[in-house]
Amino acid sequence: MTDLPQSVLIKEEGPREGFQIEKGPFTSADKIAVVDALSGTGLRFIQVGSFVAPRLVPGWADAEAVMEGFTPAPGVEYAGLWFNEPGLERALKFRGKLTLKGSISLSASDAFSRKNLNRSHAENLAAMPARIFAHQAADVPVTRIGVMAAFGCNFEGDIQPAQVLATIADGLSVARDTGCTIKDVMVADTMGWATPIRVERVIGAVRAAHPDLRITLHLHDTRGLGIANAHAGLRMGVDSFDTSVAGLGGCPFAAQPGAPGNIATEELVLLCEEMGIATGIDIDALIEAARLAERIIGRPLPSTLLRSGGLGPIRARAA
Amino acid sequence: MTDLPQSVLIKEEGPREGFQIEKGPFTSADKIAVVDALSGTGLRFIQVGSFVAPRLVPGWADAEAVMEGFTPAPGVEYAGLWFNEPGLERALKFRGKLTLKGSISLSASDAFSRKNLNRSHAENLAAMPARIFAHQAADVPVTRIGVMAAFGCNFEGDIQPAQVLATIADGLSVARDTGCTIKDVMVADTMGWATPIRVERVIGAVRAAHPDLRITLHLHDTRGLGIANAHAGLRMGVDSFDTSVAGLGGCPFAAQPGAPGNIATEELVLLCEEMGIATGIDIDALIEAARLAERIIGRPLPSTLLRSGGLGPIRARAA
Repeated sequence: MTDLPQSVLIKEEGPREGFQIEKGPFTSADKIAVVDALSGTGLRFIQVGSFVAPRLVPGWADAEAVMEGFTPAPGVEYAGLWFNEPGLERALKFRGKLTLKGSISLSASDAFSRKNLNRSHAENLAAMPARIFAHQAADVPVTRIGVMAAFGCNFEGDIQPAQVLATIADGLSVARDTGCTIKDVMVADTMGWATPIRVERVIGAVRAAHPDLRITLHLHDTRGLGIANAHAGLRMGVDSFDTSVAGLGGCPFAAQPGAPGNIATEELVLLCEEMGIATGIDIDALIEAARLAERIIGRPLPSTLLRSGGLGPIRARAA
Repeated sequence: MTDLPQSVLIKEEGPREGFQIEKGPFTSADKIAVVDALSGTGLRFIQVGSFVAPRLVPGWADAEAVMEGFTPAPGVEYAGLWFNEPGLERALKFRGKLTLKGSISLSASDAFSRKNLNRSHAENLAAMPARIFAHQAADVPVTRIGVMAAFGCNFEGDIQPAQVLATIADGLSVARDTGCTIKDVMVADTMGWATPIRVERVIGAVRAAHPDLRITLHLHDTRGLGIANAHAGLRMGVDSFDTSVAGLGGCPFAAQPGAPGNIATEELVLLCEEMGIATGIDIDALIEAARLAERIIGRPLPSTLLRSGGLGPIRARAA
């Protein structure tokens, strides 16, 4: 089956991912510079930063300063991330500048839930209604289910499509009980287990079961297959992807430091644009933003395209 | 169309590529250590080194010492590379230890021929018979046509499938005139222009025109699409690939240093094995060889899998 979309939504998570995982310290001005550079590229969604406890993620202790400081561009949706009510409270102060949406975040792997959240899938599920009510009380819609470890898990091994479907069903059940209308499902390859054939199977199963939900693929390039997996997703009609400029971020589950996290935004844009799938993004401006991020981070970032440059300028010179 | 092969031949070019392009200096013992490590992985083809003028490629001035020194494993075909008669003469001294085969090496881009070889495609073609006769006089069979720049060219821009077909036709015509029997055609993305859709078109055209020729894809990961392109090749039934362990090598045509050349062998092995396509290769042994190569080279190499490690040991621990 080939069902390539005509256009895709690329959700940029690089600033949040990168400044969370890189050592630093980085100034708020550095973070703002990256967000502002991204705002001028044609991206329609940018996750700016994270309202997490500074004790856990010191890199985002200055989330407020960055949210204050960046200059929003028209037509761009800016988002933040939070995991609990104190985080939500912090985010609410930027309502308007940020578009606030809540998520029912689950894992297809019970073992990963226990490792990552220190509670079972069932306990995680049981904790959701209180979290959703807090969002509803603040008039923040909960419209999305996220499924971590949807392709495999370092602690549980292979994950079957049926486990992903069961996890989505659990999320929809909580949504029903709490009066949320779910529009989106995010399927994440949290630990780098996806292959094109697994993408075909999992996305095929989710599509068939939930034709009304928009699927976002969140792919990591942990083992070099990230863009091949994205291509498999495109072929299955997926038209929304989470990515990081320059491949900002990383993987705490890899054997050695330096393993990539999210697929690089510019590599997905190249793949799409060269295949006639519109992204709305100026890839050369994006590569410049990637290079700015790399200079600020101060180490070579995973994206190979940022080193090689796009085809547009070469094509123009050759013509 | 999906026409995944049941097994693939992976032709390892890492030692030759890597020690040609990396600064060094490296000892012959270093080079031998990499070749010997690769010999124990299940690879069936290893290109050991290059008989090029030391003036042009000082990294391979010690080709003879390396060819002398490595320990051949049973069932592995070892190859060398040469570009002219002095190179062929040097290679002939290792006949038996090396399997010697000649190639009709052409470019689908006339502009690339001029830049790379300082002669036009027509001049390159006219020079072939003398080169082939030298091989025939030494009883070295010429069985392969190589087509560089088959997907695009930094100096000519996009390359159409028809140009690739015309280039192969030119090669076959020379082969006919000189009495060579061509069995293989190698199609190379020399400058990193391939995308999955270009692979489908070019390979589709070559397959349709020459169902009797075995196609080898030589893909570069210049812009991060290498493994996605390999997957597209597999879907088109391609069952032979040139690769480099750890992504050894590089790209002289990239905008910045550090851009990858050949796709990483271990990433292609992961893709194949996880999709049920047999490679005969022990991926964990291959990743160890990649790490050895990285320690010897002394800088982070492009492969991400060598940093993350394979899924086998993780799967075993999780089970």
